[in-house]
Formats: sequence, structure tokens, C-alpha cells
Amino acid sequence: MTPQQTLDLLLQANRLKVMPRAGWTIRGLAHPESVAAHSYGVAFLSLILAQAVSKPLDRAKLLTIALLHDLPESLLTDIPHPALRFFPPGAKRAGELEALGEILEGLASADEYRELWLDFKDRRTPEGRLVHDADRLERMVQAFVYERSTGNHLLQEFWDNTSESTFDYPASRKLFAVLRQRREKEMTR
Amino acid sequence: MTPQQTLDLLLQANRLKVMPRAGWTIRGLAHPESVAAHSYGVAFLSLILAQAVSKPLDRAKLLTIALLHDLPESLLTDIPHPALRFFPPGAKRAGELEALGEILEGLASADEYRELWLDFKDRRTPEGRLVHDADRLERMVQAFVYERSTGNHLLQEFWDNTSESTFDYPASRKLFAVLRQRREKEMTR
Amino acid sequence: MTPQQTLDLLLQANRLKVMPRAGWTIRGLAHPESVAAHSYGVAFLSLILAQAVSKPLDRAKLLTIALLHDLPESLLTDIPHPALRFFPPGAKRAGELEALGEILEGLASADEYRELWLDFKDRRTPEGRLVHDADRLERMVQAFVYERSTGNHLLQEFWDNTSESTFDYPASRKLFAVLRQRREKEMTR
Amino acid sequence: MTPQQTLDLLLQANRLKVMPRAGWTIRGLAHPESVAAHSYGVAFLSLILAQAVSKPLDRAKLLTIALLHDLPESLLTDIPHPALRFFPPGAKRAGELEALGEILEGLASADEYRELWLDFKDRRTPEGRLVHDADRLERMVQAFVYERSTGNHLLQEFWDNTSESTFDYPASRKLFAVLRQRREKEMTR
Amino acid sequence: MTPQQTLDLLLQANRLKVMPRAGWTIRGLAHPESVAAHSYGVAFLSLILAQAVSKPLDRAKLLTIALLHDLPESLLTDIPHPALRFFPPGAKRAGELEALGEILEGLASADEYRELWLDFKDRRTPEGRLVHDADRLERMVQAFVYERSTGNHLLQEFWDNTSESTFDYPASRKLFAVLRQRREKEMTR
Amino acid sequence: MTPQQTLDLLLQANRLKVMPRAGWTIRGLAHPESVAAHSYGVAFLSLILAQAVSKPLDRAKLLTIALLHDLPESLLTDIPHPALRFFPPGAKRAGELEALGEILEGLASADEYRELWLDFKDRRTPEGRLVHDADRLERMVQAFVYERSTGNHLLQEFWDNTSESTFDYPASRKLFAVLRQRREKEMTR
Repeated sequence: MTPQQTLDLLLQANRLKVMPRAGWTIRGLAHPESVAAHSYGVAFLSLILAQAVSKPLDRAKLLTIALLHDLPESLLTDIPHPALRFFPPGAKRAGELEALGEILEGLASADEYRELWLDFKDRRTPEGRLVHDADRLERMVQAFVYERSTGNHLLQEFWDNTSESTFDYPASRKLFAVLRQRREKEMTR
Repeated sequence: MTPQQTLDLLLQANRLKVMPRAGWTIRGLAHPESVAAHSYGVAFLSLILAQAVSKPLDRAKLLTIALLHDLPESLLTDIPHPALRFFPPGAKRAGELEALGEILEGLASADEYRELWLDFKDRRTPEGRLVHDADRLERMVQAFVYERSTGNHLLQEFWDNTSESTFDYPASRKLFAVLRQRREKEMTR
Repeated sequence: MTPQQTLDLLLQANRLKVMPRAGWTIRGLAHPESVAAHSYGVAFLSLILAQAVSKPLDRAKLLTIALLHDLPESLLTDIPHPALRFFPPGAKRAGELEALGEILEGLASADEYRELWLDFKDRRTPEGRLVHDADRLERMVQAFVYERSTGNHLLQEFWDNTSESTFDYPASRKLFAVLRQRREKEMTR
Repeated sequence: MTPQQTLDLLLQANRLKVMPRAGWTIRGLAHPESVAAHSYGVAFLSLILAQAVSKPLDRAKLLTIALLHDLPESLLTDIPHPALRFFPPGAKRAGELEALGEILEGLASADEYRELWLDFKDRRTPEGRLVHDADRLERMVQAFVYERSTGNHLLQEFWDNTSESTFDYPASRKLFAVLRQRREKEMTR
Repeated sequence: MTPQQTLDLLLQANRLKVMPRAGWTIRGLAHPESVAAHSYGVAFLSLILAQAVSKPLDRAKLLTIALLHDLPESLLTDIPHPALRFFPPGAKRAGELEALGEILEGLASADEYRELWLDFKDRRTPEGRLVHDADRLERMVQAFVYERSTGNHLLQEFWDNTSESTFDYPASRKLFAVLRQRREKEMTR
Repeated sequence: MTPQQTLDLLLQANRLKVMPRAGWTIRGLAHPESVAAHSYGVAFLSLILAQAVSKPLDRAKLLTIALLHDLPESLLTDIPHPALRFFPPGAKRAGELEALGEILEGLASADEYRELWLDFKDRRTPEGRLVHDADRLERMVQAFVYERSTGNHLLQEFWDNTSESTFDYPASRKLFAVLRQRREKEMTR
């Protein structure tokens, strides 16, 4: 990969900084976090969560997955969950995979990275499953943070649709339970 | 349609106010216009443009089309043009049509409105074609407005990809030509 | 009207996109909707509300009125209600009428549009009255939307000052009643 | 004045923090300074400018005028210059005076403050004239700051309409000349 | 001081307009007031509070202190209270004093202003103590304003850590008590 | 570490999402990226840059360092470079180290993470040096992105103060050279 191509790749990933997370936008949060900020949260949460997991994990793989997991959105933008039922089944996954291929074209590790991304998307390795958990947990942490800093009522929907069974790892389930308790305590004060 | 359903419909359309126009967002404009504001612009431009068109047009149809043309985005969000090639051909049009059906369900005029929306989408009536022109013209007016108020360099792409032949009506072409001249004069000062 | 003049008119109307609705601003909503987005809401609400009205209405007139109703604010800006008592009685209406004349100067339909605007301002035709209702209803819908997405307490004032008798049409009154019930149910949860 | 009334007065002045300066807004600056921030700039500039003025000035008066000069806008909002020609001559001054009276009602110094405000409005004392100069100079400083941080082209209008003769004091004229030179040097680089 | 130096000083103070108040930022208020807007609030509050104080005060001194009190932040930025314990004791005060010296260098009144700033910082004169009270009172007024316009829960911390004994003057204490009552009444509605 | 403590740690890191990058703020960029978004950029850039480096690197270490490198700012906020000369030499580094210790307290890997952070801060390992390069490169990429999307003139300062010699690795130098060329080509168009 030439430095020119590397720069193009960086500028592409940089677009995640200007993508608002659509799940917040459609619920009226005026200037929500970017996909890049969320991706940071997922990577950091994966790092920390890995410590509470008994299974031995490959940390290099884990963090690479976290950094790549939303990279296709730099081309596709963040299409929120309620919009997906208007597309053919699997269309988003296929589009993301194609977009990822295009973004990484020419990179030595392109194949490795595509496999790692599939590990996450299809929850097919311990590392992929942990980032999958982290992605969902991070959203719930952020929902709580927005609720206590903005008074938005519409985020209740996320709590209604999330439970311990959303998560693969017992450590994720425990952390979610603690988060939900904290929220209940703080929000009813 | 019960008043409860009418309210649901209004709340759905209200979401267009919090949808940022993605074409600006991905080019780094921090807090761009909403889809609702753009839709206002298209409706107003259609009204004015119709006066410069020799063909007799049905103004009621024309304005209804303008008000409906981006309504599906209240469910689908504004997926920008460069993202579309990652979806199957026609997927967006099909998704929008289905979303529109869902939004309008129960409304007496649902069928009429769906036909009007197709008039726009498929440019199959004089009114549909005029709103189609207005939609593109409005984007170029806004591109110019952003260029002179923000110094963004990336909007040049829109000018590179738009020409008189983009438009159906001679009146639209003339207006575009005047806009491009104004921009050239002002931007090179 | 030359294309140059048409462009000037469009650029003038475009300013509605950067006018924040002052009623929200003075109550501390940081980045509220623009007047253009509100105007879209009023036009869409008029379209939908018309279907619930037994009286036959001229839809072309109706939507034209909705698109024009706040056009003078592109020159005057949105001076909020509590500020008006510091101006001579009728000063705002007179200023708006003069501003509208200036904006539309040279347009073939200038006279027609001015009459339509007066239909709204003075509630003197069925179409003007319906847009008048829609303008107020749209504000209340938006107040509810802001209340549930921001936690702002100051919008209570709007509910204290609005009742069924604010509206001309029974359909508007019914819709307002339903909106108020929805709000009460959701806000006290 | 009871503490309750004092609190009301403070909450009223606090509204200047959420009033965007309309002169910037109508020229497309997305989130411009508030009237409160501008008022700070005027007060600080008055303090500094007074040192370059040979005439002995009453600093307490000077700063009080600066802090009061836009207080009526907390009720009237910031109606920009181009909008004023649509109101009867003198309507804004009369409205501001009445609004100021209402804001200050019950305050021991209400009469003194109203006189100081008129000193500014009618440029009738050395202190009033200096704040008048500072108000205009501060706008030009801010125009320059926005030009170099945003690339907005529309602020040229302010430079076209301002010259040394805009200002009363030689010190203001000299400072403006230096500002204009700095801008020319920096903007053409 | 040459006009060139004066301009540099004004551009330095102008930076307070783009400094967000960090105490709000770290508690999740998306686009809080600037330090300049806060400084306006402190100066205005000092002016009004002075009238409720029995002690005779030098108003010129008082307002000059208020305008200068956060000037060092134009170089240091607004480092919030919880961050300070990670710096050596006195490091912030020393840094601010040095920054102030640099900002005012060459100004005829530099020495006088530095002394006035120390009057505030070390609460060593009646005027310095009143601005100190005003600085804290202004924060609490703003906390209340944000609570009622945003639904932020995290500002409770300010109320927990502030009491009558925070303030030097009986007038400040009385005003704070009234503010707290108003908040309790309004927030529990 | 209990789940309660883990949650506290996540909420602490979450604050990076609301910390604006101060280097952009003080140069007048209204709503710049957060520290979290920047941290994502640094981690991603480290991942990509590592592929162009001949030296074998430990990717797990590398990415962990990138995710931790600005974590102390969640307590200290982002104090921009020009402010640092007003603090005792080494005060920031010492404060960051202490803050990091406090944030990580109770975490099994606390010691390992502190060492990794020092690897970055003191450029004492190949991984630490690469993240150090990535931190600076990412800033320059972002400067370019802001220049082309906002028209800000003040970012020139970053280009004046950065050269190939800023970077440790030849791969970083080459990438910087390519970036600078791209900018020169695009900005002078």
C-alpha cells in the first residue's frame, strides 16, 4: 500500500468523526456522539471487559475487531435499526462487507481484517463475541449518560429491549445488571 | 383515520426535523439543515419555478408531491448517494415505497399520495418532473449558500456533477445557469 | 421576473433555514428548529388536517398559504410573542406586509400571494383559517416533542395558554385534545 | 427591591446568554456568540479604550453603560439592522426604553440606569459616546475573528459599511484602522 | 501601548467567547455558555448586588474586577475544579497571575489591574469579595437555568456543595436562599 | 475489581466523549471533535501505521497504549499546549500520572497500563514511540480535514510547527510528507 493509499484510508476512517450515531439522532438528541467516539468506547470497554472474562482472549485480535467494527459506516453511514426492515434481509450485512472490502483494498492485512470483522458480525469467535457484547453494553452506558444529562424520555425504549440475555458473556450480563440498577436508583431520585 | 392515528402520522413526519441532510454531514458541515428544512425549500422552489414554466401544472398536486417527496426518510433516514451502490439496485426505491405505505396507512388519501410520490420518483408526470428538478436545484442553491458562509471546499463535487442536462425543464436549466454564474462571480472575488 | 430576480427570491427564502424559532430559543433550547423546518411542519399538517375537515377546501391555496405564512420573517426575523407588546399595535403586521411586498416584487403572482397571506393573517377564508390552526397546532406538537427529548420545563407555558378554543376547526380541536392527552400520559410516567 | 425581585432581574438578564447575535445568524454563522458574550466584549473594550482617550472619563459610568446597553434585548431579542426599516421610525428605541423600564422596575437605581442608557443611545455624554464606539468596534473585531475561523464571505458587508468616520473618538478611529490593516494582511495571504 | 498592542489584547480577551465553561461541559451540557457570557453575568450581578450591600463600594473598581476576573483563562483555558487537585497547590493561582501579566504587558494600568485581580483572588478588599460572591452566585443561577431548560441531573452536585456560608455578604446569602427556594419549588412541580 | 467499580471506570472514560479537543476550540472551531473521537483516530492510525513499519511490534500493546494515551484527560480535561508554560515544568505529566492511577485503581492490570502509558509519554518503547507518532499525525490529518471543511485560517500554525523531524519512524515521516503535499495541492486550488 502506497503512502497515498494509506492517506486515503485514513481520510475514509476519519469520516466516522462526522457521522452522528443515528440511534440518538432519531430520538431527538441534538448533537450526539459520533460513530468514532462510540468506537472508542467499544474498544475501551472491550479492553476492560476482557479482564473479567475467564476465557483467555487474544487482545490484539480483540482490539483490532473493536476498531474495525463500524468502519463500513464511514461509507454506508449509520442506518439505524428501525430502518433496516425496509431493506431485503441481509442487505446491510452484504453492503457492509462490500464497503469494508473497498475501504481496505490494497492493505496487506485486508483479508485478515475482513475475517476479524466477520468474527464480530457473525459472533463466531470468543473475541468477536466479546466485541459484540461491548457494542451493546456501550450503547446502554451511553443511554444512561444521556438520560442523566438531557432528560430525554425516548431512550426508555432501549431499556425495554435489552436484558441480560442480550449478552453472551456472564461478565457482560453482570455489568449490565449493575448499570440497570444504577440507572434505576439515579433516575427515580 | 382516528385523531390518534393522525397524531402518529404527524409525529412521524416531525422526525424530518431532526434528520440532518447526509450529503452535507459527510462533507464535514457540522450542523447542516434538516430534511424538513430542505423539504420546505423544495416546496417553495416548486411554487416559484412553476410560474416560469409554460406548461399548465396542477399546483395542488405539485405542492403535495413536494411535501411528500422525502417523507419516507422519516423512517429510512437520509442515506446519501455514495452509500447506495452498496445496496442491491432498486433497494432504496422499494424500501421507500414500503416505508411510505406504512407511514400513510389508514389515511383516506394514502393511495393518491403513493401515486403522487411515484410521479416524482419515476418522473412520470409534469408535476413529478418539476419537483424532481426543484429537488436538485434546491441542493445547488444550498451548496452555494454553504460555500459562501462556511468556506467548505468539498462541495465543489456537486458542481462538477451537475449541469444543465441534469434538469428536465428549460426554466430549471436557466435558473441553474444563473446560479452557477453568481457562484463563480462571488467565489473568485 | 428574470432568472436573476428568481434567484434573489430563492436566496431570500433560504434565510428561513438559518432563523431559529425564537419561541424555543428564549426558553433555553440550545439549537431549535429553523423557521423553514417549522414551515414544512405547518404545510404538512395543513395537508393532513384538510382531510379531517368537512368543508371543501382549495388545496392549492391551502398549501401556498402555508408556504408563504412565515416568509416575511426571512427579512424581519422571528420576533417572539412576548416582545411584541413593546411595539405599536399593528406594527408587526404592517412590517410583515411591507416585507412580503418587497420579497415578492416583480413576481407575476405577487398580488395573489399577498392576498393569500392576508387570508391567513386575518383568518378571512377557510384556507387561511386552517393554516392558522395548523400554525398553532404545529407549535404544540413541537412543544411535546421537545419536552420528551430535552426535559425543558419552560414549555409548560404553552400548554397553559392553549386550549381547544384556540382553534377554529373542530378537527383541530379534536387533534389538540388528543395531543394533550398523549402528553399527559407520557410526561407523568 | 426584594431578593425575589432581584432574582427575577438576574433571570431576565440571563436570557442574553441564549440570544444569538442576529447579525451573524442571518449571514449563516451556525452558532454565533450570544448577546451576553458580545456585551462582555463591549465592556472590556470600553475599559481598554478609555485608556487611550485623553478626555477624563467616569469609569463607573462607562462600565455601567456597557453592561446595560443591550439589556432591553433580553425582552425584545436582537432584531438585526436590516429588519428595522419595516418598523415605524423610532419604534425600536421607544420599545427598548419601555422594555428597560419594565426590567429595572423596583430597582433603586432604575432612573439613573435609564439615563445612562440614553447617554449611550443618543450619544449625549463622553461615556455614552465611548460605549457607542466600543459597540461598533467590537462588532468589527468579531467580524475579523469569524472571517479567519470560518471562511464566511458575507461579512464583507460590514467592512464596506464601516470607516473611520463611523467612530467618535480619534482613539477608536486609530484602532479601527489598525484592525482593518491586520485583516487585509491576513485575509489576502 | 500602541494600537497594534491594544488590538492584540482585544483578540486575546476575545478568546473567552470560544471557551466553554468546563464545569458544564464535564457534566454533559452539550453547548454551554462561554466564559465571556459568564463574565458578563458576573459583572451584571456585581452591579445589582452592590445595591443591596450596606457598605459603600467603589463601583469602578468593582466592575473592573468583574471584567478581569477570568481574563487569565483566555490563555489557560477553563480548568474545572475537580482537575485542580492533580496540580501542585497554588499552581493555578501562580499560572493565572503570570498569564495575566503577559496579557496586560505594556498596558498603562497593568499594575493597577493585577492588584485588582488579586483583590478578587485573595478576597482582600470589599470589592474583591463582592465579585467573589457574584462569581459563585452567578454559577448557581446558571445551574438553575440549565436544570429547568435541559433536564440535566448532574448539576445537583453544585447544590450539595453550596450553602449560605459559601458567601461573604449577607445580601449574597439572602439572594442564594431565595434562589434555592425558587428551584425547589419549580423542580418538584 | 467489582462490577460497580468497572462501571465507574467506564463512566469516567465516557467523559472523553464530551471533552472538546482544546487545540481546535481555542482556534475558533465551534464544535470540534471530542477527545474520544481523536483517541479512536490515534488507535486506528496506529493499527494501519504499524503495517508500514519494518520493526516487529506487539499489536496488543500498541492498541492498548493508543486507547489509554488520553485517558487522564477524562479527569484533567484537555489543557492545550500554549497553556502549559504557565505551569511548573513537569506538572502536567505528574498530574496525568496521578490521575491515571486514580482512574485505574482496583483494576488488575493497573500497573501494566501505567507502564504502557509511560512508554508513550516518555517514548521509551517501539510501541510507545509509534503511538506518539500517531498522536501527532492524527492531529495533522484532522487539521487538513478541518481546513477543507471550514475555511479556518488559524490552523496554519500547526503546519508551521510540524515537519518530518517531528516523527520517530520513517513511515510516519513519509505519511506526513504525503499529507502535506495533498494539502498544498488542494488548498491552493
